[in-house]
Amino acid sequence: MKKIWGLIMSLALVLTLVAPVASADAAENKSASKNKKVHVQIVLFDGFDLLDVLAPYETFAAAGMYSGGALTVELVSLEGKRSVPSGLNGPALEAEAALDPNRPGIILVPGASGKPAGNSKDSIPNILWQAKQTGLTKKIKQAFDNKDVTVATVCGGSLLLAMDGLLKDKHAVTNQLGMDTLAAAGAIPVNARVVEDNPRLVSGGGVTSGLDVALYLVDRELGPQIANEVETLFQYEKRGTVWQAEGMTPIDFKANQDASKASAEKQPASNIAK
Amino acid sequence: MKKIWGLIMSLALVLTLVAPVASADAAENKSASKNKKVHVQIVLFDGFDLLDVLAPYETFAAAGMYSGGALTVELVSLEGKRSVPSGLNGPALEAEAALDPNRPGIILVPGASGKPAGNSKDSIPNILWQAKQTGLTKKIKQAFDNKDVTVATVCGGSLLLAMDGLLKDKHAVTNQLGMDTLAAAGAIPVNARVVEDNPRLVSGGGVTSGLDVALYLVDRELGPQIANEVETLFQYEKRGTVWQAEGMTPIDFKANQDASKASAEKQPASNIAK
Repeated sequence: MKKIWGLIMSLALVLTLVAPVASADAAENKSASKNKKVHVQIVLFDGFDLLDVLAPYETFAAAGMYSGGALTVELVSLEGKRSVPSGLNGPALEAEAALDPNRPGIILVPGASGKPAGNSKDSIPNILWQAKQTGLTKKIKQAFDNKDVTVATVCGGSLLLAMDGLLKDKHAVTNQLGMDTLAAAGAIPVNARVVEDNPRLVSGGGVTSGLDVALYLVDRELGPQIANEVETLFQYEKRGTVWQAEGMTPIDFKANQDASKASAEKQPASNIAK
Repeated sequence: MKKIWGLIMSLALVLTLVAPVASADAAENKSASKNKKVHVQIVLFDGFDLLDVLAPYETFAAAGMYSGGALTVELVSLEGKRSVPSGLNGPALEAEAALDPNRPGIILVPGASGKPAGNSKDSIPNILWQAKQTGLTKKIKQAFDNKDVTVATVCGGSLLLAMDGLLKDKHAVTNQLGMDTLAAAGAIPVNARVVEDNPRLVSGGGVTSGLDVALYLVDRELGPQIANEVETLFQYEKRGTVWQAEGMTPIDFKANQDASKASAEKQPASNIAK
C-alpha cells in the first residue's frame, strides 16, 4: 500500500515539474495562433452559385469568430465594389472590394448556377465562359504566380480556371457532371470531394463540397480545434479524405482488366476457342 | 426449348397489354405533377444566418429548375421589399416581397448568425429576441392557423417560434447547442436532423440540416425523382430519417435505467449491503 502511495506522490511530483513546461508550450501555441492572420477572398461573378460561395463564406466566418479574428473573409469581384447577381435569377450579393491577386492568403473561386448543360444564356457552360471573357481568369493567373496565395475552387470554379488553361496537367476535381469537361480542358481529374494538387491549389467537387474545402483549409491554416468547433456549430462533419499527390498509389484494377482484355483480343481466335 | 419460347411470347403479350395502362398511368402522373405548384417563402430578418436561408433556397431553386417550374421560391421579410443584413456582419440579401401568411405553400424560418451564447448585441439569443419583437412571430402564428401552409424551420428558427410559444407541446429540433432552450420554451425536443410534428410543422437541426429539411419537402411535394436529381447536382445525400409521431416507439433504455436506479435508492441500505 505504501508503495502505491509512493508511486502516486512521485507521479504528482512529475506532473508538478512538467506542468509549467506544458502550459508554457500551450501559451506559445496560443500566441502563435494569435499572431496568425489568414485572409480569404471569395470571388463573385455574374451568375455565380450561391451555395458555392456562401457555404465556404460562413465556414470561414465562423472560424474567424472562434479564432478571435485570426481569419477574415470578404466577397470580392474583378470590378471591385458592386452588386453581383447570382445565377438562376437568384439574389445578388455585394462584393466589398476588388480581387487582389497580390494579397497573401486564400482566393476561392466558385462555380455558376444555371442549366447544367446546353448553350443557352442561362446554362452553366455559357455563364462560366462569360466570366472568363471578363478577364477574371487572367487575375487568377497572377494569383497562381504568387507563392503566398492558395487558390481554391468549388464545383464549376475548377472548370472556369481550366477553360483558360490554368489547370493544365494539375490534379483537380469539379462537379461529377463536369469531370469529362475538366479532362478535356487538360486537367487530371481525380474522384474525391477535395483535391490538393500542391499546397497552393485546392479544388472541390459539386456544390456542398465547398463545406469540405473550407473546413480543410481552416484545419490546415488554424488547426483542427477551430475546424471541429465549426463542424459542431454547423452539424456537419468534413467528408472524404483530401486527395494529395503523395503516399502509395493504389493499384488500378480497371486499367489492369482493360489491359488483359486487350491482350486477350490480340490472341488468335483459335487460341481463345480452346 | 419450345416451352421457353412460348413463355417468352406470353410474357411479351402480357407486356403489350399492360404497357398502355402503365404509360397512361405515367402520363397521368406527369400531368398531375405538371399542374402541381408549390410556392416557398423564406423569411429574412436582421441578423439571419446565410446558410440557414440559402441552402434551402438553392435546393428549392434547383427543384424548380428540374421540375420545369412546379416549385417557386422567394425571399421575403415582415416589412416587404428591403435589403436585410445577415448576422456576423455578413452580406445582405434582398427580400423581394412581404411575408404573406395566407399564401398556400411553405414558409421557412431560418435561425440567426452570431455568438452562440451570451447577451451581447451580436449574440444569437439577442438577435432572435429582436426578431420576435418586430412582430414576425405574430405573422407566423397566422401561417400556423392556415391549413394550406407548412411552416418549416432551420436551426435557431425553431427557437424564434418557441420564444413566442408557437411550438408549445410540439415535437421539434433546433441546433444541438439550443436543445435545452427549446425544451425550456415548452417544445418537445427530438434528436433528429429533421422532425415532422405533423404535415404542417417541419423543423431542422443545426445550419446544414437546412439541406435535409428542403430535400425532404421537395420529395414530399414533388416526389423522390426531383429530390434525387438535386442531390446528384449538389453532391449531397439527405441525411437522417425524418422523425414523425407515428409507428412504433423505441424502448427508452436511459429512462429504464434511471427508474431502476431510483427504485434501488429507495431500498433500505441494509438490503443493498447484501
